[in-house]
Amino acid sequence: MPQRVCNFSAGPATLPYDVLEQTAKDVVDFQGLGMGLMEVSHRSKEFMAVVDRTEELLRELMQIPNGYKVLFLQGGASSQFFMVPMNLLSIGKKATYLNTGTWAKKAIKEAQLFGDIDVAYSSEADNFNRVPHQDEYTINEESEYLYFVSNNTIFGTQFQKFPETETLLISDMSSDILSRTIDVSKFSLIFAGAQKNLGPAGVTVVIIREDLLSRAQEAIPTMLKYSTHADKGSMFNTPPCIAISVVCRVLEWLKGIGGTDVIQQRNEQKSAIVYEVMDSGSYYRGHAAKDSRSHMNVSFNLPSPELEAQFIAEATDEGLHGLKGHRSIGGCRASIYNAFPIEGVQKLTHFMEMFAQKNPV
Amino acid sequence: MPQRVCNFSAGPATLPYDVLEQTAKDVVDFQGLGMGLMEVSHRSKEFMAVVDRTEELLRELMQIPNGYKVLFLQGGASSQFFMVPMNLLSIGKKATYLNTGTWAKKAIKEAQLFGDIDVAYSSEADNFNRVPHQDEYTINEESEYLYFVSNNTIFGTQFQKFPETETLLISDMSSDILSRTIDVSKFSLIFAGAQKNLGPAGVTVVIIREDLLSRAQEAIPTMLKYSTHADKGSMFNTPPCIAISVVCRVLEWLKGIGGTDVIQQRNEQKSAIVYEVMDSGSYYRGHAAKDSRSHMNVSFNLPSPELEAQFIAEATDEGLHGLKGHRSIGGCRASIYNAFPIEGVQKLTHFMEMFAQKNPV
Repeated sequence: MPQRVCNFSAGPATLPYDVLEQTAKDVVDFQGLGMGLMEVSHRSKEFMAVVDRTEELLRELMQIPNGYKVLFLQGGASSQFFMVPMNLLSIGKKATYLNTGTWAKKAIKEAQLFGDIDVAYSSEADNFNRVPHQDEYTINEESEYLYFVSNNTIFGTQFQKFPETETLLISDMSSDILSRTIDVSKFSLIFAGAQKNLGPAGVTVVIIREDLLSRAQEAIPTMLKYSTHADKGSMFNTPPCIAISVVCRVLEWLKGIGGTDVIQQRNEQKSAIVYEVMDSGSYYRGHAAKDSRSHMNVSFNLPSPELEAQFIAEATDEGLHGLKGHRSIGGCRASIYNAFPIEGVQKLTHFMEMFAQKNPV
Repeated sequence: MPQRVCNFSAGPATLPYDVLEQTAKDVVDFQGLGMGLMEVSHRSKEFMAVVDRTEELLRELMQIPNGYKVLFLQGGASSQFFMVPMNLLSIGKKATYLNTGTWAKKAIKEAQLFGDIDVAYSSEADNFNRVPHQDEYTINEESEYLYFVSNNTIFGTQFQKFPETETLLISDMSSDILSRTIDVSKFSLIFAGAQKNLGPAGVTVVIIREDLLSRAQEAIPTMLKYSTHADKGSMFNTPPCIAISVVCRVLEWLKGIGGTDVIQQRNEQKSAIVYEVMDSGSYYRGHAAKDSRSHMNVSFNLPSPELEAQFIAEATDEGLHGLKGHRSIGGCRASIYNAFPIEGVQKLTHFMEMFAQKNPV
């Protein structure tokens, strides 16, 4: 095993090392077939079995009820920003969005191409430092769906309680899918780019209630209809085979350690260690309001931009990588997704304490 | 090195073994960074350098002139079927398509959602056994572009001479990009899914003349505009990092062996060996008309479907994999892309000769 750094990147992000080792073997020879994973036909029984197993694991781990389709698509979460309204918003109809960060805002922009978008809540004036409680917004009665981002990667906020609504509920869970146990039956559509908790960049998971598949207008390009991919088991065209295969291995790993109950506990424990250091003094100031804190991304500031730059540089020298905050808010950010080990979090908090002591203000 | 079979798959397809070995190393540890290729931030200087190098190599190998952008997108060639007309076809305007196979036909279907599509040529009545000469079709004067598929994977046909036209020329080169030296300046847009000659499934290359970037209507989703990706150097959203990285390694390999002049010679030599066996008797009947034969995919029939099934089964036992023809035409097909070695072709033709001797009709 090579020397591994602590990789706090927001995505692509750290993966279980076992998954990397297994994938490296797959790449040169897949299942002893005499060809590598990237060379095997997507219609071979061996690769089809990978797709089937990936779906089976996702269904088991998330307890996805019958009546939902699981799709593996390309184009990232950014493509879902338009595919959701393109497929689900009838012409001239309304949808309600909660504006809790950069990715919500981008989704709103795309949705506005398709319908009348009601932004029922926005924390933009406070630099997206929180997500709303249920009583802070009203869902327009004519709204076809409510859309929200469950975890805001950049600002380090997360819904600890999901919106409750009679209308269709749609969530971008790119940065916290499988990080906790949720009730999928409350949702009409969940999507997630893989590169945080699921695997590598290049595949997007969509979980969609089957009765929504027939909503899309006829005049939509074939590749952009959810029904196309649902009808063909995500094999309408050549899928991103290696990305799906790695997702499969990540899901096997998650199942092996005990599933979402176990990982939720670990994630809560990991983030608590960082928040405790932040709360023990005034040196590190968390960006998120306390009741909106994310277990996946911890965004924080130091007393000055100069100290932040020094912190990031010295941390890197200590093997703590990827702590620079997103360019849109600056500061620091520690992304500690499912596969990020608790030892790395302890190393970070130890470094934070030492740094604050050595560089008082 | 594991025992390798001869992989005649149509795509995903065989890749240079060196590329697989290098990628396996990248997967566990990328450039000694202490993280694997799939874990590295797409905005890290190390990964950005991979994207830059991939573009540089493609520009060098294809001699792409200034004034063209190179994009790395997701969604496969199937997404280009609608992105081309969505971006380039003004409302109510015409475009001309040559219907030379399954993928051309699918592209025509998507284009019809956007404009008035003039199908100037079709070989469908002859089960797509040929591509047209210049004098077999007329390009409508009002046509905004001429669209054709340079190589038809399923039917084993290929344009040996490209259409000449005053209008914009657009080509789906998914199955023969980089297989020969071409003059890019004759084209307005070239696209190719990677999984034949470029690398793994999951990334699509688009080469587009810069003056076409401003053609798209404002109301198109951001992710579907070529200009979005051109403006951001294919980093508007998280790209399929591992797929691009493998493409980079495949291009380094191609450059190392001498580029498109050398590979063109090899490809002509490889396909000639198979066609020679076919032409030496009446046992193997090529699907493609002689003047339309592909150097990439050789589709052929045996005297009966029973013999075809036996041929494919016995070939597989001999380590010759993936010879079954596409389900839409049946029979046999040998895909012999850039990375397919001449030794494998010789093994195939030896087997073909032995099989015909042992199973006379």
